[in-house]
Amino acid sequence: MKVKQFTTEELEARILAGDLVGLSKGITLIESSLQTDRLQAEALLNKLLPTTGKSIRIGITGVPGVGKSTFIEAFGSYLIKEHGKKVAVLAIDPSSQQTGGSILGDKTRMETLAANPNAFIRPSASGASLGGVANTTREALLLCEAAGYNITIIETVGVGQSETMVKNMTDLFLLLMLPGAGDELQGIKRGIMEMADILAINKADGNDTNKAKHAQAAYKNALHLFPPHAYGWQPQVTTCSALQNRGIEKLWQLTENYIHHMTLNGAIKALRSQQNEAWLMETLHTKLVEDFLAHPEIKRALPGIKTEVLAGKTIPASATKKLLNLILPTTH
Amino acid sequence: MKVKQFTTEELEARILAGDLVGLSKGITLIESSLQTDRLQAEALLNKLLPTTGKSIRIGITGVPGVGKSTFIEAFGSYLIKEHGKKVAVLAIDPSSQQTGGSILGDKTRMETLAANPNAFIRPSASGASLGGVANTTREALLLCEAAGYNITIIETVGVGQSETMVKNMTDLFLLLMLPGAGDELQGIKRGIMEMADILAINKADGNDTNKAKHAQAAYKNALHLFPPHAYGWQPQVTTCSALQNRGIEKLWQLTENYIHHMTLNGAIKALRSQQNEAWLMETLHTKLVEDFLAHPEIKRALPGIKTEVLAGKTIPASATKKLLNLILPTTH
Repeated sequence: MKVKQFTTEELEARILAGDLVGLSKGITLIESSLQTDRLQAEALLNKLLPTTGKSIRIGITGVPGVGKSTFIEAFGSYLIKEHGKKVAVLAIDPSSQQTGGSILGDKTRMETLAANPNAFIRPSASGASLGGVANTTREALLLCEAAGYNITIIETVGVGQSETMVKNMTDLFLLLMLPGAGDELQGIKRGIMEMADILAINKADGNDTNKAKHAQAAYKNALHLFPPHAYGWQPQVTTCSALQNRGIEKLWQLTENYIHHMTLNGAIKALRSQQNEAWLMETLHTKLVEDFLAHPEIKRALPGIKTEVLAGKTIPASATKKLLNLILPTTH
Repeated sequence: MKVKQFTTEELEARILAGDLVGLSKGITLIESSLQTDRLQAEALLNKLLPTTGKSIRIGITGVPGVGKSTFIEAFGSYLIKEHGKKVAVLAIDPSSQQTGGSILGDKTRMETLAANPNAFIRPSASGASLGGVANTTREALLLCEAAGYNITIIETVGVGQSETMVKNMTDLFLLLMLPGAGDELQGIKRGIMEMADILAINKADGNDTNKAKHAQAAYKNALHLFPPHAYGWQPQVTTCSALQNRGIEKLWQLTENYIHHMTLNGAIKALRSQQNEAWLMETLHTKLVEDFLAHPEIKRALPGIKTEVLAGKTIPASATKKLLNLILPTTH
């Protein structure tokens, strides 16, 4: 099927005007692995770069069943209605790489928010590697900012593969928890709780209202056991019911407090600068290894050298040297 | 200070004869970053490679205070005395890279075992990177095997940075736990428990004997919640008191059961083959990135390109391409 192609200038103009078709096409371009598409995507991104950076970047995670979709619907709708925000939601689903299926790709999710003209929802990018997904998600976030979205939400499943990635591309990391499930840590990987700037116990409604209160107290105590926050923020614990639309305003207040704190002491700037440097180095490492392994001489030599190592005839250090000497002879 | 240098042939002969001085010198050579030393180390390793692989490789971890040293003393001494084994212990301490200090470097640790002629104990290798430490530890393990040690123990602190590394270079992963501390998971990172082939609750003595029994039952239940073991083994939970020398024999039985299970179905061979392939690829990635970043043209260009990225003038993908084009122009 031949789809109408936009020039880089057309895409730039459409995205800057907040046009949804332009934004969608731009992200599709970013996600493409075709060489010509990549060139156009990079040209577009470099043009738009000066208009980016003006959103509050929020990472949201939590185990399946915690109610992330319902929460983002309630939170996003509230921000649009009460604060005149424009909300973009990008999803990362590490499982989609392995299984092909994706719990985040479900189009019936966040129906109300999806129908709102001030919201933009984009399901998970699929990619060969988690590193590739990280890069396209970061680039997609920049496009959303260029399109005028001032709240950008990156959503991921709390199962341990993509949280660090999301933490490294957002200003605020929000962890959703279930009421009263502290006993089991709910399948959340241990390091994740320590990454949270705000922890919200969702589904604090009905019979679980009290349970949620107890969980809140327990998590408040637990947070004191963690090493101090990198920028002097005291991570907060709150409760909410996305289903009943309660606690959403309070959560926004905490978000604003956090951003205020991080802006006052210059921390947001430092954090983003650090994130950009890490992004550069990650991209460099990933691409370097990819290009190296794709080099014809390496592709030809690697299987034989691998066999030698597996047969116990040579150690990896010597094998590596042989491979590097094939195309980087001057460096060692 | 000028130390007597051995030729590669001298080192080879001494190590094959089980000479402790030769083994120590060989490991020091492996740990050296001098280019001439590395060349000699690789020559030595490639010569010795056919004589390696005949030990049971055991990874041991647990939080500080769990009694790893006391346990290894008791376990190692038991294996030497009752089963005529030769035991080598290598330690990895990730904290020593950051703090300079090392809880594992303490020379008063494992005094009895250290004095035993059939034991060899080597403290943590220090290195620039965790990847470098992984490589030298693997190489040191091979030297120990060439020297005739048939039980090789790699010890690490259970704080989450080096366990995966140790898991990836051993046949059996033993996790030591404290009695009755399941409520807090004892600071062990969540993923670690899932890596254990055998879980031993140490300090099961005095007032804590019952606590340890309860912990054993609790962990047994918990292990059922994890995904199945890669090679069909059912991870075991046992109790011991290294201090009182109790439960050590039982633990050795479990170890033998595990090795029997893993040998019967060819799993050890598959596991080690997989580990060697991963070792090769890790070494290749690490060395490739190191060499690339050390290249004069990259060293000259990187700061300026980094500044452009941090100033929001170019995206990482474009910056990366510029850098790669400097020395790998043909590959993309």
